[in-house]
Amino acid sequence: MTVYTPPLDDMRFVLRELAHLDELAALPGYAEATPELVDTILTEAGKLAADVWAPLNQSGDREGSVLENGVVRTPGGFADAYGKYVEGGWGGLPFDPAHGGQGLPWTIATATQEMWNSANLSLALSPLLTQGAVELLSAHGSDAQKVMYLPRMISGEWTGTMNLTEPQAGSDVGALKTKAEPDGDRYRITGQKIFITWGEHDCAENIVHMVLARTPGAPDGTKGISLFIVPKFLVNADGSLGARNDLRCVSLEHKLGIHGSPTCIMAFGDGGGAQGWLVGEENHGMACMFTMMNNARLSVGIQGLAVAERAYQAAVAYARQRVQSRAIDGAAPDSVPIIRHPDVRRMLMTMKATIEAMRALAYTTVAALDKAKRHPQPEIRARNQARADLLTPVVKGWLTECGCDLASLGVQVHGGMGFIEETGAAQFYRDVRITPIYEGTNGIQALDLLTRKLLRDGGAAMTALQTEMGVTIGELDTLPGGDMAPIREALTEGVHQLSTASDWLLELAETDLPRAASGASPYLRLFGLVTGGWMLARAAATATRHLANGADAASPGKPFLTAKIQTARFYADNILPRATAEAAAVMRGGESTLALDEGMF
Amino acid sequence: MTVYTPPLDDMRFVLRELAHLDELAALPGYAEATPELVDTILTEAGKLAADVWAPLNQSGDREGSVLENGVVRTPGGFADAYGKYVEGGWGGLPFDPAHGGQGLPWTIATATQEMWNSANLSLALSPLLTQGAVELLSAHGSDAQKVMYLPRMISGEWTGTMNLTEPQAGSDVGALKTKAEPDGDRYRITGQKIFITWGEHDCAENIVHMVLARTPGAPDGTKGISLFIVPKFLVNADGSLGARNDLRCVSLEHKLGIHGSPTCIMAFGDGGGAQGWLVGEENHGMACMFTMMNNARLSVGIQGLAVAERAYQAAVAYARQRVQSRAIDGAAPDSVPIIRHPDVRRMLMTMKATIEAMRALAYTTVAALDKAKRHPQPEIRARNQARADLLTPVVKGWLTECGCDLASLGVQVHGGMGFIEETGAAQFYRDVRITPIYEGTNGIQALDLLTRKLLRDGGAAMTALQTEMGVTIGELDTLPGGDMAPIREALTEGVHQLSTASDWLLELAETDLPRAASGASPYLRLFGLVTGGWMLARAAATATRHLANGADAASPGKPFLTAKIQTARFYADNILPRATAEAAAVMRGGESTLALDEGMF
Repeated sequence: MTVYTPPLDDMRFVLRELAHLDELAALPGYAEATPELVDTILTEAGKLAADVWAPLNQSGDREGSVLENGVVRTPGGFADAYGKYVEGGWGGLPFDPAHGGQGLPWTIATATQEMWNSANLSLALSPLLTQGAVELLSAHGSDAQKVMYLPRMISGEWTGTMNLTEPQAGSDVGALKTKAEPDGDRYRITGQKIFITWGEHDCAENIVHMVLARTPGAPDGTKGISLFIVPKFLVNADGSLGARNDLRCVSLEHKLGIHGSPTCIMAFGDGGGAQGWLVGEENHGMACMFTMMNNARLSVGIQGLAVAERAYQAAVAYARQRVQSRAIDGAAPDSVPIIRHPDVRRMLMTMKATIEAMRALAYTTVAALDKAKRHPQPEIRARNQARADLLTPVVKGWLTECGCDLASLGVQVHGGMGFIEETGAAQFYRDVRITPIYEGTNGIQALDLLTRKLLRDGGAAMTALQTEMGVTIGELDTLPGGDMAPIREALTEGVHQLSTASDWLLELAETDLPRAASGASPYLRLFGLVTGGWMLARAAATATRHLANGADAASPGKPFLTAKIQTARFYADNILPRATAEAAAVMRGGESTLALDEGMF
Repeated sequence: MTVYTPPLDDMRFVLRELAHLDELAALPGYAEATPELVDTILTEAGKLAADVWAPLNQSGDREGSVLENGVVRTPGGFADAYGKYVEGGWGGLPFDPAHGGQGLPWTIATATQEMWNSANLSLALSPLLTQGAVELLSAHGSDAQKVMYLPRMISGEWTGTMNLTEPQAGSDVGALKTKAEPDGDRYRITGQKIFITWGEHDCAENIVHMVLARTPGAPDGTKGISLFIVPKFLVNADGSLGARNDLRCVSLEHKLGIHGSPTCIMAFGDGGGAQGWLVGEENHGMACMFTMMNNARLSVGIQGLAVAERAYQAAVAYARQRVQSRAIDGAAPDSVPIIRHPDVRRMLMTMKATIEAMRALAYTTVAALDKAKRHPQPEIRARNQARADLLTPVVKGWLTECGCDLASLGVQVHGGMGFIEETGAAQFYRDVRITPIYEGTNGIQALDLLTRKLLRDGGAAMTALQTEMGVTIGELDTLPGGDMAPIREALTEGVHQLSTASDWLLELAETDLPRAASGASPYLRLFGLVTGGWMLARAAATATRHLANGADAASPGKPFLTAKIQTARFYADNILPRATAEAAAVMRGGESTLALDEGMF
């Protein structure tokens, strides 16, 4: 069984130095987010994650969630581990104190979210969905709905779900057919939904389903979709639970991974119609759902990071302990731990460097969101909102793709043992494979990045980002140390490639959108590679400054700071050069991508 | 359930146009290998693979092989499907007619091997191991041993295994401890072996284990290893089966994939010593085993190709059938099959182009081996042997890594359904993950490429390859069509990168082998990318010539030839540019790869 150790040093470094925790604490309502409180939160969350959640990851995979007589039994220990999360108030971290939340920055909640997902991806999905539903109701629910649902969803006593997908309506949400017929102050919902994560389970006393459906006579497509609250148990006016609603889990999917997470086929209204309550107005369901999905997209990016971190820790532990063959320099006759072999070292460095880039990119994106919500100056709010909008598909797409690649490297470090399920490395490889798929496939993310984020504002948000990356490049120029020049050069080249590819797409899309779209995925990858490299360059610059100022006494100390610089250098030398290949695919690749006659595949 | 259709058109094209089947048929003893016979072989093998083996792939995964009371029960249908393979004489294709083989070129056997592995990777592992054992005995066995074992192993009535690994001896084979004590004309073997593929099963009447062990007083390490034949049932002088030998399967591994293939922990000599017969001389076991492993390495490369092909076919079928969303050009109001969406198209093109490069590289490498064995001129034999030696680790390493990447893309094309086991895409992703690990991890392959293939001859084989690639580049210059120039330019740049990185490594290794070794894996990837691109460039050149000569009438016809050119172009535009990034990692990356203090991981 693999152990999980929360990477607190790096989390703190990113929060303080790159996401600028002090600036967040200066925002209205966030004064409590002092470094001391954040330390306490990270430490305590880390204990629950490491000591309670993480040990259930492998047993949860083996046992899986099971449907018996309409009841979903989650793996042994899950209900109790989730109960401890509720007791600790972990679900309420970023939410409105008016409804029982703690009103802390999302950025801090994001760091704890990484830990839940590293510890146990299957279990962490339940609060992840609940959090999306809370955000949705907070933004679009009526006051009465907020009073009725939010306190117990924020506490985690009740969980939430997201019911979009139907067999014929996946990425094409507008094709859904579930019906909602008005019935007094409520609606009667009938239809079937698939891929409903934690749609039914035994870890909470109620489940609040957010269901997309069509009212009679609604327009076709996404414009005719409304959103409803459809609770498993009806809620009485006094807040107590009433009758069971007319909905049930028909079956569970047999999946590649996340076996502990029940993925349900849900039937609504087999007995005449499930009772649902409209959220917002009729036909505005997609706007509501996007609130939930935007949040969830960042969370799924965090999942990619989280599983990669856990896979990395397992790989390092194995590489330290597994003794095999002599060192290649031939200096000593004895066999050595495989961490000393250069190729194993390369795999571990690739994991470490990419993970640190991923973490920094995710946390800083969420920090931009915090500023977009709370900053007193409208232009700073707008600038940060544009940045967060731009980077959200990148965080979702790039982090999940890297998550898969790194989990695969984790298997490889284990050699033959990596293919044996008992080792645990294979589970990470299976589990993380869902992340490039759900909450909008990465192809959809890439299209979102291209059309809604790059094209819609004519490249303005992109240009602002580029300018900021230029500032970092200038800063690297002024700093001491032999690593700064190669880091600066690699970043300069990466930014150049990103900028050139962006300009190319802006121009091409005007005349040939399909061809531009055929470059969307490499463009997203290019975006991730370069912004990830930027993050590590910023980290290296910060570390260099701290070292120059005599950092020995300060946490996290000289070895950590030195390693930061070396890690950024590794990324610059080994990973960032891929930007050129991705840019080539964007700019050269469209014609040949679409050239082949469809019959020749 | 996914269907398998043997890609006969591409197989024939590669065999005839790139592997030069006519030249193979001109070699001594290979006269039977006419295009007509080869067509018949491919067609008939394809039928057995598609109709009998392929339908058992998913059920085999679900059922798995099971150990009960010391007996391994393989999945339903496996024994029968294997029996049909034996009946058809498929195992004997490339082997000596003196022992019942058909004496055909290995290149042709390789094409059939691709089909077995596409159809059912788990089942195909049994003949794969048998084939290695046959090669080993053919090369190193005594005449008596050949007579006793070869006919029934070549026919497939008996299967073979390869017993190297022990818990403390994986990549470091020299650390093995299994003992062999002389006992008259035989030895008594005691020890435990792990990861023994098809070590016990119910598909053949006898299993001939090839076991590495140490005789008393043997030197330490690989120099003290001897190889033994240790049959499950002893073989009487008249060829009939005698007593059960003292060996058994202790347990089966619970693996990520290839569930149908029994991966055994084998105990030898629990009852006092299994009876084994020495192959060759004492302490020469490693040389014998390398014969088996060289062959197996190419076969494992073929497995990467084979699973990718099957995953591709499943992805194309799904993309044609799944209707979701309107086309991005907005021309029509109806939803379209997702194969029309540019990003899906990109994924399918990536799969198709890479697969065709992989196939061409593998088949031509085996063709070089055929020439190395049979060509009347010693210098041509030597040249081809050097080429095959050089490319063997590339075929193993690059094809298996691509196999994993492409199977993952296959999952992605399926969206949410890709994560559901019922669909079948997930099985390919799980199954193929073993291929970068077994028969020497890809890290070991990369080290072999660097040290034994590049450094040992001072780059001579590499230079010869480069010269030949230069000839193709010159040829592209003379051909008509707008795709030739970009293909030529991309290949020119790729060859330049490969050549520069090779020179760099040759120089660096003299002073700093560890640092050179840290670049071995990107070097292997670079090698695969460029030689794969060369293969597609050759294919495009050939197709262009055929089209210019009026190819409409000829098989495979104009659409196929046009698609070949477009596919090569796609690879040149979208995939080959990665060569630059890999070369950068080779040349810039070593210092930072090894810089980090071991304690900082």
